[in-house]
Amino acid sequence: MKINGNQQTSIWYDKSKNHVITLDQTKLPHAIESIQLKEPSDFIHAIKSMQVRGAPLIGVTGAFALAFACKEDPSDKNIEQAASAIANARPTAVNLQWAVNKVLSEIDNLPDSDRFEMALSVAESIRLDDIANCSSIGEFGLTIIENIYNSLPEKRAINILTHCNAGWLATIDWGTALAPVYKAQAAGIPVHIWVDETRPRNQGASLTAFELNQQGINHTIIPDNTGGHLMQHGMVDLCIVGSDRTTSRGDVCNKIGTYLKALAANDNNIPFYVALPCSTFDWDISDGTKEIPIEQRDPEEVRSITGVDSSGEVRTVRVTPNESSAANFGFDVTPARYITGLITEKGIFEANKRSLLALQEMINNDEARSSEANN
Amino acid sequence: MKINGNQQTSIWYDKSKNHVITLDQTKLPHAIESIQLKEPSDFIHAIKSMQVRGAPLIGVTGAFALAFACKEDPSDKNIEQAASAIANARPTAVNLQWAVNKVLSEIDNLPDSDRFEMALSVAESIRLDDIANCSSIGEFGLTIIENIYNSLPEKRAINILTHCNAGWLATIDWGTALAPVYKAQAAGIPVHIWVDETRPRNQGASLTAFELNQQGINHTIIPDNTGGHLMQHGMVDLCIVGSDRTTSRGDVCNKIGTYLKALAANDNNIPFYVALPCSTFDWDISDGTKEIPIEQRDPEEVRSITGVDSSGEVRTVRVTPNESSAANFGFDVTPARYITGLITEKGIFEANKRSLLALQEMINNDEARSSEANN
Repeated sequence: MKINGNQQTSIWYDKSKNHVITLDQTKLPHAIESIQLKEPSDFIHAIKSMQVRGAPLIGVTGAFALAFACKEDPSDKNIEQAASAIANARPTAVNLQWAVNKVLSEIDNLPDSDRFEMALSVAESIRLDDIANCSSIGEFGLTIIENIYNSLPEKRAINILTHCNAGWLATIDWGTALAPVYKAQAAGIPVHIWVDETRPRNQGASLTAFELNQQGINHTIIPDNTGGHLMQHGMVDLCIVGSDRTTSRGDVCNKIGTYLKALAANDNNIPFYVALPCSTFDWDISDGTKEIPIEQRDPEEVRSITGVDSSGEVRTVRVTPNESSAANFGFDVTPARYITGLITEKGIFEANKRSLLALQEMINNDEARSSEANN
Repeated sequence: MKINGNQQTSIWYDKSKNHVITLDQTKLPHAIESIQLKEPSDFIHAIKSMQVRGAPLIGVTGAFALAFACKEDPSDKNIEQAASAIANARPTAVNLQWAVNKVLSEIDNLPDSDRFEMALSVAESIRLDDIANCSSIGEFGLTIIENIYNSLPEKRAINILTHCNAGWLATIDWGTALAPVYKAQAAGIPVHIWVDETRPRNQGASLTAFELNQQGINHTIIPDNTGGHLMQHGMVDLCIVGSDRTTSRGDVCNKIGTYLKALAANDNNIPFYVALPCSTFDWDISDGTKEIPIEQRDPEEVRSITGVDSSGEVRTVRVTPNESSAANFGFDVTPARYITGLITEKGIFEANKRSLLALQEMINNDEARSSEANN
């Protein structure tokens, strides 16, 4: 997608300089700054401090991190330690563990000297797959927007509400929840996006709004409290959000507050879709509310807010009384019963066990075919 | 209630100086500053800029405003103009119109020379009634907390979630939603309050947290996105919020975001109560979502946040990209079907037409008795 009119992706390997380049997303939207990652500790810091965030981007960053750990020291012992440190940098995102495991399985039987090259190539293939998957999610999601648009008696922009940032900044390109939006723009369907600001880290107000500005898409930032009111008054046609972890029955763990929007969509008969790559599935668990541990982050993220002052300087201010404590749960779980459908790179699936078993079979068959093709 | 250990109320008339004193709530929690109101324009500015806020406090401020308009010029023409300007200073709070009408009806047949004294006395009686009403709301609400506490197999603090500030700062003393909390503290029942920060103006993070600190009540500030997750995990025993306007069937118009918490409480079988003085009833309307116009405020309140920096200086920072627009709806409507009960100064009532007809009759009978007693 675009930054200042130029096409770029959120992370890439620069072969000539032998390092990985990504954007420091903690600086957006006020400054566009690239960072170079080289040491495994650079990658872990980038994940922990949320310079990179979003399940798919975290996964690719984790894969590159393990590659650079192989470069540093390709011994089994070091790789094992590094893999564990990387996988634990963010506890909720299942993609991170998935990407690390994928790299591990490919280098396991290789001599030490080949491990860096192979790990790098696996990371790059995860990266390219992610771009293709997101594009595909966009195409499937586009059909939903087209159907709503085609059913309108009088043509107008389709109002889509989204929470947090599941755009290209959270992936490599296109995004998940925003991919259908970008595909709709390309297809000439007018869209207007209600952007939940997404407290406490304001990923909507900063990152999603930044993306949509850069892409020239009409949008309005709203407090997280607002979506219910808009839905009651017919001002939302469709909700699309992302997922950090998806269970075998279709429960979705996503940024805290997603559940509240799903309840409001349900109460007002508004379709509520979740766009996600199949890598977010955790097939071993079913009941997300009971089985997914929810990451708690620094309460200071709730007590303080960073922005720019009138002179353009980045500053952090504390909103709460000094004496008050705060709690900062990172995610919540939206039960499958409130989800209209899951938009994946393999098609749109109902959020229930039966429908997702079919998806799981499809994934297994595709993997079997692809591994046959490789042999 | 207490500020720095001293008992005080949120607004009072200082006879010796012939002005009204209130707190500048836009400065809280970082600075405790009193302001003096004397000219009608001072009062209107205080209401519009939210130096005073909360339906009951706005109502009393409006009554004092009209008294001081009588002092300036007690002619019918001036009073009519002033009453309209005052009543329109905030469109949603029905108390404001109610208080202004109450003063108007008492001074209507008086000679000009008596109007200021009478208006002042009506304002003071509205103020004292509000204190008594809030105390009574607190006593009725206490019974709900007591019942939950008494039913616990093992004694622990009762977790109560509240949204916005419906504490004593929003009224004159005690508050509405927080009155049962203060009464529980006095009754020796341990409570812990989950304080929704309440974007965009952060009345929870600033005012409710400030009140609870001053009163020594255990509390935790949470982003507005968090309540659903807490309710899913059994971490909320009870929700209590306030109301700015209540319909004849029990729909409640309160700070934007209230509706989302009511949906989550409903989904998790958690009691959701609204504490309100009967003056918030608008008996002429039934369907709040359709019939209550929702105030839209300055989008800059969404784009920017005010707090203190590390040196204690109050600063405003912008969080959003400069190019992005924002929307700022002040309130939403929670349909009666999601409300467990309405805690009023006359008792706890179900949120439905039948139950509230009984309340309306009770109010009418009480008023008839009180007007008989006055004759």
